[in-house]
Amino acid sequence: MKVFVLPAGFEGGDFLDLAGDDYHYLCRVRRLKTGGSFPAVDARGREYHLTLESAGRKSCRLRVQKKGSSLPAAGEESLVLYQCLPKGAKFDMIVRQAVELGAARIVPVRSRFSVPRLTDAEGRLERWRRIAREAVQQSGAYALPEISAPVSFDGIPEDFGESREGEKKLGIFFHQNPLAISSLHGYLSSGPREIALVVGPEGGLADEEVQLLLKAGFVPAYLGHRVLRTETAPVFAAAAVRIILLEKERWNLANGNRTYQGDGDPGRPSAG
Amino acid sequence: MKVFVLPAGFEGGDFLDLAGDDYHYLCRVRRLKTGGSFPAVDARGREYHLTLESAGRKSCRLRVQKKGSSLPAAGEESLVLYQCLPKGAKFDMIVRQAVELGAARIVPVRSRFSVPRLTDAEGRLERWRRIAREAVQQSGAYALPEISAPVSFDGIPEDFGESREGEKKLGIFFHQNPLAISSLHGYLSSGPREIALVVGPEGGLADEEVQLLLKAGFVPAYLGHRVLRTETAPVFAAAAVRIILLEKERWNLANGNRTYQGDGDPGRPSAG
Repeated sequence: MKVFVLPAGFEGGDFLDLAGDDYHYLCRVRRLKTGGSFPAVDARGREYHLTLESAGRKSCRLRVQKKGSSLPAAGEESLVLYQCLPKGAKFDMIVRQAVELGAARIVPVRSRFSVPRLTDAEGRLERWRRIAREAVQQSGAYALPEISAPVSFDGIPEDFGESREGEKKLGIFFHQNPLAISSLHGYLSSGPREIALVVGPEGGLADEEVQLLLKAGFVPAYLGHRVLRTETAPVFAAAAVRIILLEKERWNLANGNRTYQGDGDPGRPSAG
Repeated sequence: MKVFVLPAGFEGGDFLDLAGDDYHYLCRVRRLKTGGSFPAVDARGREYHLTLESAGRKSCRLRVQKKGSSLPAAGEESLVLYQCLPKGAKFDMIVRQAVELGAARIVPVRSRFSVPRLTDAEGRLERWRRIAREAVQQSGAYALPEISAPVSFDGIPEDFGESREGEKKLGIFFHQNPLAISSLHGYLSSGPREIALVVGPEGGLADEEVQLLLKAGFVPAYLGHRVLRTETAPVFAAAAVRIILLEKERWNLANGNRTYQGDGDPGRPSAG
């Protein structure tokens, strides 16, 4: 266990009583002994240090110590993944990998070419949230990503516009054709604090969807000539953005070619 | 179907007779009609244009036209993935995603902390090769990646040294701790033509394995503070390298900081 995620209802306090799955996980699966301690995090990313005080046959009590609020990821840019709903169980895998890559929020999107009608939306949301929580515990991602309720495609700009108001934002969508001569390095050089990644379903984005995003200030990015499966595209997109940001002190935009200079200024707000 | 992969034994010729799975796929699954045509590629990445001449109940005949040898990926750097064997069926998923990201060769590695003993190595190789072929057909990756027979960890430098002799090579291994102040941008700025990516198993790389790679001239890279699952690490690694290379005309190494200059010259041959 890298980091234990506290139950959503946890509001602070010196002690925490756990039963059910959490008790089972800690005391049966992890076989935690009295006095044993481990790191934890709440739904807002605040860190704690937990110590097992006592364990019964169906529940256990933990001592809770709050840690400083300085997260390892503090100062890191925030990624929001707008993922058009793919077929079958692919979204499960996308949630798992997006959490590992540190997505702060994942928004399922009903798009023109999305196949699924998303029956039992509540049940599936519940499932994705459980998968996200498990992935956080495995990966030490620290902050539990939010899995938002599904939005329709044309709701993306408004949804992103309302998220983390006041932050410097950049909306990027990924397209199979190189729509622009811009680059991810160019877009990201503008220093955005919150970045939306819009990834299409199996059938890609419809022309009117591309137009809608362009009008809302989202910029097109290109990941190469290969056709990526729906479940690989968001990992590639998130990984590409992460490595460029992680190494942002190590590179500068290429100069000497004026046509590239425009790349450095895509910092228009991506939502109206 | 994006691109059909010709059978391994295909040696050229004006006509090709297919039976079995390939026949079934083209005539039953894809319901190809006489006169219908589609692109194809052989195991070496050469492109063809195939047209269905006739179809019987168990076999079909295709007219083969060779296309120019200019691949869309011509000039692209070649990636070799040395993946330490993970548990269970994870390697299947790794093969699939690595092919989508355009790995030219995938080498299963028996490492110190690899759990599986790889029983039925032949059967598993056969399976991985089938998965790679399917992934190529889906992704339009054009060249069928080679899945090599497993090597032991200390055989990596020699294996990589022998591959594509004469090419400018760069061996990179991915480590959970930032072992060096170098960056992927720095390593890749040296203009390597063939790049090895070494990715550990669930338990990570053993200290002596890290030492072995360092001695052989491989360089350590860091993908951020998050713990990636074994099946996500190679996708992140390959995606990070791909985007930096894809946009290599768009960035320069940051200057003004002499300590970074060393990054630009890791071009020592990575195998002795």
